[in-house]
Amino acid sequence: MVDADPRLATVADARDVARLLHAFNVEFDTPTPRAEVLAERIASLVERDDTFVVVAGSPPNAIGLVTLRPNVWSGTVALLDELYVEPGARGRGIGARVLALVVEEAAGRGATELEVEVDEPDVDAQRFYEREGLPLADAETGDRAFVVRRTL
Amino acid sequence: MVDADPRLATVADARDVARLLHAFNVEFDTPTPRAEVLAERIASLVERDDTFVVVAGSPPNAIGLVTLRPNVWSGTVALLDELYVEPGARGRGIGARVLALVVEEAAGRGATELEVEVDEPDVDAQRFYEREGLPLADAETGDRAFVVRRTL
Repeated sequence: MVDADPRLATVADARDVARLLHAFNVEFDTPTPRAEVLAERIASLVERDDTFVVVAGSPPNAIGLVTLRPNVWSGTVALLDELYVEPGARGRGIGARVLALVVEEAAGRGATELEVEVDEPDVDAQRFYEREGLPLADAETGDRAFVVRRTL
Repeated sequence: MVDADPRLATVADARDVARLLHAFNVEFDTPTPRAEVLAERIASLVERDDTFVVVAGSPPNAIGLVTLRPNVWSGTVALLDELYVEPGARGRGIGARVLALVVEEAAGRGATELEVEVDEPDVDAQRFYEREGLPLADAETGDRAFVVRRTL
């Protein structure tokens, strides 16, 4: 297994991306569709202009999945929906390298802001994002921001 | 002025929507583009499938602005980017009626989840969303979720 440079995923990576997303959910006890169902969804998502996936490693051992949305204030906002590094590949800075390509690609697609949602108990993720320039508290106001949600 | 039923905004409402978004930012001391610049952006946003605006009142005194994004788990997620009721129109349940149409329209466009970002000091908004079924803490886990961000 090689820690290859992060790169944009194509349709050909759909199965690997699905495998990693499936492993992500199993690791965090979240219900997950079967990997084959995920692979189909990912194959159609990576063809869209408003979604992209970064993979790293050969075979891939890390992914970042990003969606872009229009915003009335800033033009386009990028949301890092998922960032996952396989347990055996952690501690080598792979997540930071995936995030760096996420930032570059999002900016290249016109985004002026990058957002990530992180759960309150997930302090490891909070520490990672803080280190990478996405602090929990806004640098200017000192305020945190919450996400509230409901199913429809 | 009439508290008309909430309805979907069209290009013809762009100036009124811009006026309300501009007033929103002025009220909350947020930098805002000129209303004419906003009106142009809104005119193009309401033509898109992945954005819609709800307005209420004649002339409009309340708006809700929603963006939709693809999601690998749930198909489509709707984000209520902005919800604003003019100061003089508050306390009459207009915000709840706008939110109800937001929910209906988002579901009609295939969204299975609605999200809202709310700042920590904005306890009035948190109370409103809690009452409307979008609690700060997840009903199952009791956890809150944060959003972290950086400019690109």
